[in-house]
Amino acid sequence: MTDRPRVYLAGPEVFLPHAREIGRRKQALCAAAGLEGLYPLDNDSRAEGGAPDRAIYRLNVAMMRRADAGIFNLSPFRGPGADAGTVFELGLMHGLGKPVFGYTNAAATLLARTPGASRDAAGDWRDADGLLVEDFGNADNLMIDSCLAEAGAPLVRAEADCALDDLAGFEACLRMAASRLGAAP
Amino acid sequence: MTDRPRVYLAGPEVFLPHAREIGRRKQALCAAAGLEGLYPLDNDSRAEGGAPDRAIYRLNVAMMRRADAGIFNLSPFRGPGADAGTVFELGLMHGLGKPVFGYTNAAATLLARTPGASRDAAGDWRDADGLLVEDFGNADNLMIDSCLAEAGAPLVRAEADCALDDLAGFEACLRMAASRLGAAP
Repeated sequence: MTDRPRVYLAGPEVFLPHAREIGRRKQALCAAAGLEGLYPLDNDSRAEGGAPDRAIYRLNVAMMRRADAGIFNLSPFRGPGADAGTVFELGLMHGLGKPVFGYTNAAATLLARTPGASRDAAGDWRDADGLLVEDFGNADNLMIDSCLAEAGAPLVRAEADCALDDLAGFEACLRMAASRLGAAP
Repeated sequence: MTDRPRVYLAGPEVFLPHAREIGRRKQALCAAAGLEGLYPLDNDSRAEGGAPDRAIYRLNVAMMRRADAGIFNLSPFRGPGADAGTVFELGLMHGLGKPVFGYTNAAATLLARTPGASRDAAGDWRDADGLLVEDFGNADNLMIDSCLAEAGAPLVRAEADCALDDLAGFEACLRMAASRLGAAP
């Protein structure tokens, strides 16, 4: 066990074939920064028992409650926006009053990534279904970008598109988290 | 003013052309159930001042903190999953310890709605990019379905696809919320 500050490592990389390897890389970077990285896939949902999805949920929530902060990979996932599980966890940890940090590996705005967006008669952007598309220059829904900005650590945005498992944005978040949590490398 | 229990009304209908009308309909249903519906578009973000996205965020968060519970429209939005803003708010209100209720107007599972999903050699479902697709029978990411189920009010799922602004699922959530909050119609 350790008494280094604990950081929950949220992101859709848990769905990649090499999910565990990415977790190890993130945890090694955390250790070098004087932090302990908590990775959801390290939970043993079989030991928890019950329906597997509910067991995973309970263990992830317990891990977030145990963490001192969270770092969120908010890269687009199966659509123009971030992974729903990661976004839920961002809201949860912010609601729990813990420091949150986030990055995205996509360079464009949400508006630029939304297929078929065009201006309506009032000048608002709408997609092909007539649904409003936000035009604030944000990377995602305003609740996500603004949560991070208002909490003092604006979303780290890639300058050029990079892969879901690229860690440059993560490392930038890690520096902010280490500083906020007073970690000693 | 009123002393009826207050329910935050979250969902992507704020992006529809008739967003305000849907808000009025939801608020009328709330009133009939003995509740006060708080609708994000009723906030005056211009009076709040500053960058408009940040103003909207701050007012929405203040509204959620003022609410006694939340009802979330988790219907798919621009992709296989729910609207990111709504999912963030679900996490936030759950983190704040408030009762949460949710519905979706899509009948299929997340797996059935994910394009190009097929089984890999290990028997797991993967999309065309090799990303794992959850196979728990849920309507969305397990964090969403399980949050609601573990909190005592499982996600209300449409039996057949209906429009984003259909309110049958909302009314089912409203009945649960009124019961939980001890509302008097």
